[in-house]
Amino acid sequence: MPLSKITVELTNAPKNKPDNDKLGFGKYFTDHMFILDYDAGKGWHDPRIVPYQPIALDPAAKVFHYGQTVFEGMKAYKTPENSILLFRPYKNLQRLNRSSARLSIPHIDEGLVIEALKQLILVDKDWIPDEQGTSLYIRPFVISTQPTLGVQPSEQYKFMIILSPVGSYYAEGINPVNIFVESEYVRAVTGGIGNAKTGGNYAAGLKAQQEATEKGYSQVLWLDGVHRKYIEEVGSMNVFFKVGDKVITPALNGSILDGVTRDSVIRLLKHWKIEVEERTISIDELVDAYRGGQLKEAFGTGTAAVISPIGELNWQGDKLTLNGGKTGELSARVYEFMTGLQRGLIEDPFGWIEKL
Amino acid sequence: MPLSKITVELTNAPKNKPDNDKLGFGKYFTDHMFILDYDAGKGWHDPRIVPYQPIALDPAAKVFHYGQTVFEGMKAYKTPENSILLFRPYKNLQRLNRSSARLSIPHIDEGLVIEALKQLILVDKDWIPDEQGTSLYIRPFVISTQPTLGVQPSEQYKFMIILSPVGSYYAEGINPVNIFVESEYVRAVTGGIGNAKTGGNYAAGLKAQQEATEKGYSQVLWLDGVHRKYIEEVGSMNVFFKVGDKVITPALNGSILDGVTRDSVIRLLKHWKIEVEERTISIDELVDAYRGGQLKEAFGTGTAAVISPIGELNWQGDKLTLNGGKTGELSARVYEFMTGLQRGLIEDPFGWIEKL
Repeated sequence: MPLSKITVELTNAPKNKPDNDKLGFGKYFTDHMFILDYDAGKGWHDPRIVPYQPIALDPAAKVFHYGQTVFEGMKAYKTPENSILLFRPYKNLQRLNRSSARLSIPHIDEGLVIEALKQLILVDKDWIPDEQGTSLYIRPFVISTQPTLGVQPSEQYKFMIILSPVGSYYAEGINPVNIFVESEYVRAVTGGIGNAKTGGNYAAGLKAQQEATEKGYSQVLWLDGVHRKYIEEVGSMNVFFKVGDKVITPALNGSILDGVTRDSVIRLLKHWKIEVEERTISIDELVDAYRGGQLKEAFGTGTAAVISPIGELNWQGDKLTLNGGKTGELSARVYEFMTGLQRGLIEDPFGWIEKL
Repeated sequence: MPLSKITVELTNAPKNKPDNDKLGFGKYFTDHMFILDYDAGKGWHDPRIVPYQPIALDPAAKVFHYGQTVFEGMKAYKTPENSILLFRPYKNLQRLNRSSARLSIPHIDEGLVIEALKQLILVDKDWIPDEQGTSLYIRPFVISTQPTLGVQPSEQYKFMIILSPVGSYYAEGINPVNIFVESEYVRAVTGGIGNAKTGGNYAAGLKAQQEATEKGYSQVLWLDGVHRKYIEEVGSMNVFFKVGDKVITPALNGSILDGVTRDSVIRLLKHWKIEVEERTISIDELVDAYRGGQLKEAFGTGTAAVISPIGELNWQGDKLTLNGGKTGELSARVYEFMTGLQRGLIEDPFGWIEKL
């Protein structure tokens, strides 16, 4: 079968769709999914849309043992006029291939994936919720399936796309979260896999996240693994700080994720003539700026929450309250613009929106 | 069902057993496997031995996305008298639980696992090869199966044991390997998950391993992620160096694996009255010892190879040939003792061997 020919098998048993107020994040999945297989010597083959169903793998499949996986996260939105919009999908698929290269996973043609993604969304278009704040979350991922226990790159993979209608990340509009600055655990280090979107980075963060939750914090702020003082990410989001009239964010140093929302926010701020610096930022610099009254706002950026304002940073017991614990003006402005753009309510000056 | 009651379903279709000379490592699996399920609120339940078969998982199962997995590696040996021997099984299962704690995976009763392991091995005892150098490799592992995309510890898991008859790691006795000292990629860092036996660490090593192979080297020697100069591990083994009359090995610093073979070799060397130091070792110290004629031997230790002598270290283009590229006297002596002990050919002075 030519790689461009996607076969479609429709379900005979469509599921009931959940109510919008019960959606949550990544709990419900649509009626279909996309699968593409890889075998060494044969390449990627058999692109197909099939009913959403369990996948059967040999217990020796490498994904269960050696974590050779990558994934992406994207969203599709339904406009008031019933158009379906994607946000910078090529940017995510280019990153998927960069992650794959780091994990010794074969490259996938981005055009084929976009085509598959569009077809899949159209098949399940009735699953896209249309209430303010809801969207269809898109999860493309690659797993290594060769059933052998040698520690080598797999010779077999599955690339899949699953879709999940998701609710508003904030039940009642955008709300700040409290963040624990992590000084014991490390997420990633230069030379490691921190800039790849792969399971191991998320596994490495679970324990710190769990301990932060027990202390009453939503997420941790990660510091670098070498000096234990430079800001990296917040939870699984990139992070921005407004200091005086400037915005600063950690530079892409090899151990943090090259976020699509991060890149978009930087370009948006520059578009608004707000000065943005991508550079090394130490926790001491932030504390000093806070003491001097210059640390005005902070927010995380990621596909799931889009913008997540930070109300408090706990650094070794010191509580730094930002903007009185309330959503800052800039955070709100960026959130409104980004979500408005993604939902087609604001004209797109950047060419980021792709209409199906 | 009480947790101690293991049900057994035997296969109706036993597979053909591979020839001893075709075994390789982790390519063939026996007729049965052990499964234990976990659900939050219910705990571990339904221990069962069933025919070896694919497992069906929802595509959203957390293991496919966030790498929340742990595993172990052990071996069973058949003696010339047809006894079945295990080597320090509790030590591995204690480490499994330490790895699980780091990955926010619930604790499993070690006694139950030993019982399950023994029953499973007895069911498949005809699969244990008995030729010199062969054994039955045992792979216990835990995967997170909850089908939700939130980045949190899973509320559902499967613990499984699969068995694989494996060949001699060395086709013609013990042979030295050439090692590339890695200066670009990093396996793990203090504060991370380097001392847990989890997929992410192995995923992080694939690229370096692949590039070393392309340069003609078997494995990489990992340096620490902070200073990029202290020795950590070799491939996925611990590493020992004979310098003068002493043996040195990296101390357990939180970023290397607490190897069972490592611990056994340290105790064996002390039993032989050979001085062993567990401490920080820089690559510069090794190069200096080499230049001064004091670096006599080096070898890796791990369950798969037991002892893997190092014939050459390539450090930034400098080739350090150890013991003329031949297996050293001490490496051979340790290998002979350890494999003799594990196969029941040598009396066990340590109480490490457990007979089924």
